[in-house]
Amino acid sequence: CLFVTCSLIFSHSLCAAKLLKASGLNPVVLEARDRVGGRTFTVQNKETKWVDLGGAYIGPTQNRILRLAREYGVKTYKVNEQENLVHYVKGKSYPFKGSFPPTWNPIVLLDFNNLWRTMDEMGKEIPREAPWRAPHAEEWDKMTMQELFEKICWTSTVRRFATLFVNVNVTSEPHEVSALWFLWYVKQCGGTMRIFSTTNGGQERKFMGGSSQISEFMAKELGDRVKLRSPVCRIDQTGDTVVVETVDKQTYMAKYVIIATPPGLNLKMHFNPELPPLRNQLIHRVPMGSVIKCMVYYRENFWRKKGYCGSMVIEEEGAPIGLTLDDTKPDGSVPVHLNSGYVVLRLKRICEIYSKVLGSEEALHPVHYEEKNWCEEEYSGGCYTAYFPPGILTQYGKVLREPVGRLYFAGTETATEWSGYMEGAVQAGERAAREVMFAMGRIHQSQIWQMEPQCVEVPALPFVTTFWERNLPSVGGFLKLMGVSTVLSLATVAGLVAYKKGLLPRS
Amino acid sequence: CLFVTCSLIFSHSLCAAKLLKASGLNPVVLEARDRVGGRTFTVQNKETKWVDLGGAYIGPTQNRILRLAREYGVKTYKVNEQENLVHYVKGKSYPFKGSFPPTWNPIVLLDFNNLWRTMDEMGKEIPREAPWRAPHAEEWDKMTMQELFEKICWTSTVRRFATLFVNVNVTSEPHEVSALWFLWYVKQCGGTMRIFSTTNGGQERKFMGGSSQISEFMAKELGDRVKLRSPVCRIDQTGDTVVVETVDKQTYMAKYVIIATPPGLNLKMHFNPELPPLRNQLIHRVPMGSVIKCMVYYRENFWRKKGYCGSMVIEEEGAPIGLTLDDTKPDGSVPVHLNSGYVVLRLKRICEIYSKVLGSEEALHPVHYEEKNWCEEEYSGGCYTAYFPPGILTQYGKVLREPVGRLYFAGTETATEWSGYMEGAVQAGERAAREVMFAMGRIHQSQIWQMEPQCVEVPALPFVTTFWERNLPSVGGFLKLMGVSTVLSLATVAGLVAYKKGLLPRS
Repeated sequence: CLFVTCSLIFSHSLCAAKLLKASGLNPVVLEARDRVGGRTFTVQNKETKWVDLGGAYIGPTQNRILRLAREYGVKTYKVNEQENLVHYVKGKSYPFKGSFPPTWNPIVLLDFNNLWRTMDEMGKEIPREAPWRAPHAEEWDKMTMQELFEKICWTSTVRRFATLFVNVNVTSEPHEVSALWFLWYVKQCGGTMRIFSTTNGGQERKFMGGSSQISEFMAKELGDRVKLRSPVCRIDQTGDTVVVETVDKQTYMAKYVIIATPPGLNLKMHFNPELPPLRNQLIHRVPMGSVIKCMVYYRENFWRKKGYCGSMVIEEEGAPIGLTLDDTKPDGSVPVHLNSGYVVLRLKRICEIYSKVLGSEEALHPVHYEEKNWCEEEYSGGCYTAYFPPGILTQYGKVLREPVGRLYFAGTETATEWSGYMEGAVQAGERAAREVMFAMGRIHQSQIWQMEPQCVEVPALPFVTTFWERNLPSVGGFLKLMGVSTVLSLATVAGLVAYKKGLLPRS
Repeated sequence: CLFVTCSLIFSHSLCAAKLLKASGLNPVVLEARDRVGGRTFTVQNKETKWVDLGGAYIGPTQNRILRLAREYGVKTYKVNEQENLVHYVKGKSYPFKGSFPPTWNPIVLLDFNNLWRTMDEMGKEIPREAPWRAPHAEEWDKMTMQELFEKICWTSTVRRFATLFVNVNVTSEPHEVSALWFLWYVKQCGGTMRIFSTTNGGQERKFMGGSSQISEFMAKELGDRVKLRSPVCRIDQTGDTVVVETVDKQTYMAKYVIIATPPGLNLKMHFNPELPPLRNQLIHRVPMGSVIKCMVYYRENFWRKKGYCGSMVIEEEGAPIGLTLDDTKPDGSVPVHLNSGYVVLRLKRICEIYSKVLGSEEALHPVHYEEKNWCEEEYSGGCYTAYFPPGILTQYGKVLREPVGRLYFAGTETATEWSGYMEGAVQAGERAAREVMFAMGRIHQSQIWQMEPQCVEVPALPFVTTFWERNLPSVGGFLKLMGVSTVLSLATVAGLVAYKKGLLPRS
């Protein structure tokens, strides 16, 4: 049994291989890069001790990756959110607490409330394992998120923030992505609050020592079964066993193959026989997002002295970044600011915006800088995950993890919970491994998909909505209501006047 | 000097190689398939004599491909359009003459007129060599064609036909493609009339004996410089010469390489060094359209007896085809109907719709059938051409034909006139060859891009617009006008009444 892998957000292939080895099989992992970890990438040096230049955050409900971390003794710590967050908009900084910046404008408040509620309610209609079966799948898939925002947002404030919400979560633009796909993505992460929050959400924690450790521990366990620098360029399943060839002309034979690359990187391989038409079309249609991850290091975390925790939500035309988080080590050493900027960035521009947002001259004097441009990686194609342009999910989505002969598909893109995250990668890798075990007659079909018990150390709290959040009207609804009540009050006034003037018969 | 080619609509690589050989250089062509011709594919058998299962049509202003055909003595003949065309809508057939179905409903007439005029006028603002520099490039690129149609079309009749217009021209859906890209595409073919017309347009003629002949003649001329079954999987330009490896482990060395595949098929190759970030992102973002080309053969062309030329414009929900053309051989033999259906087709369903549209029982009894599903071809990825989803052309378009070190890019997708057609393939191949010749110091930079004189046998007639076509209002404009004139006439009437009643002072 054999695995092919080019690049992966946290080696799905390693999860699959680990599970298969534990079942007494003999897996081999072919890794295109010169390291394991895929779209996670922990670098160690004296300035940073360690730094995650790829996938880094974990949080409640991500129980599979937490289980693996626990198994290898990798601890988590909470991202600092003690002090105030800050929302920078129209050149001013507003400190706040909670997941989303608050507002004092009642119209904007109604509009924000309606945005999150609408997205979550639409999400409820979308099956996480088959978004193409949602009742309005076709209609929503023909729309971009930009079109949807134009329909549901009344104020430019909310429309701007909605754009940032897409940028930050899927490193692409609202006009590039299908509404159906994006709504599914948010839903399968647990909704708008879970995906965007630090505390109790997707960014609650990081791993002590970095996220790549988990892949490295698994690779160590697998030993020389893991072949680095082995990009696969050919897969032939015309014979009894599958023949796999790498660019450096090594040949491997296997009964089954799990391909754990992002869907688009299947294109790096030449297939014999050719892939079925739908899959052949799918893999040309799901590009990766674009992100450059940047970290700016300072002598001390001066922002905390000013009462800021380090989380900044930055709305400015042409700003290089939209969201930052404090990345100071839990023992207080190596103060650092994290940016998930997703356009071409320069240190100077980042420091300038920091200085403006935090109102601090100190921000202009970093002591160290790290960055990683995921767009230039041939074996990633981008980060964090693949996105679906309009029309693709309903037409081609159903073949995303459909086996092709003896080829099975893993990769975080094929997951149904936290797809796009390390958690999704583990779910996908283990599911694909169990698909192979089912094909070999070693387990029952009903065992392929498995639930994961909650991690005790990282419990998920529900997000409670208030009566008002559930029942306040949208701005449109409010205006209608106002219209009706205006008519009603005018009618009442008119009635009173008429009564007083004796135009109506008194009873 | 060396060329890499996987698949191409009419071998651009052959054009490039031909030109370079004529200049005394020593080109090699690596072709992934077992034949030349790429997205053109002429099949010969006893039932059909010959049939084009890929790119087939040529017309006025496509002077480069006509020049090549003439050089090899390949003749053209006109597609039959003597009798009536037929427009099938809401279950009824309406015979007509001209490029577009006429209408008797004045509102629909205004709406159609406005649609074509608006698309052509928007097209005039788009530079054919750099659509991303159009004054409204960003705005139009963020929109899908469906959004644009929703803005400019007032009637469902016109919106339906507009959808068909996108389907037929670029084998994709209005909600999938960027408005900027589609408007550019139509513009660089010469506008809505030129691209859609048979007579005087892109479908005016076919090649006697089939379109692949031209590639075959060129391949013959190049002799054993053309290597078939040689898919390239690795390109290394770290050394003094570029090293190219094929899947069957052949190695070639060259000073320069021209890659003549559709952009997305660059992904089949592993690059050292990696491609620059923008190109790496581009090639994941430009999928090919989806088309299955089908031909139904009959004992005789019974439609002509009924006064139909064989061109059918079919609008029916779920119909397998939208447009057909007569494909009877010029000597009257082998009567055939061509469909460019672009969803999964079945012969039975095609014959049923023919029978309904032509009102003929004979349509149910074909004598032969040919089809070619381009979606399943690994080295095409689809047909006819690559499309740009929203947001991609402005972000990544400018690197489409930008050289990367010693790699140059051809392929019909990189052309600036009739991109997506055989003509574009020739323009691109010859331009790329001259880029290499310029890099070698053999020609001047100003010689890279060359105009092509008009083919004498296939002159282009201008499409003349009438005063009314230029000046009729849109439906919206018409309604406004009516509104204004209603107000005006009401005012006039009121004035008259007032005058007659003596309410106004008489002068």
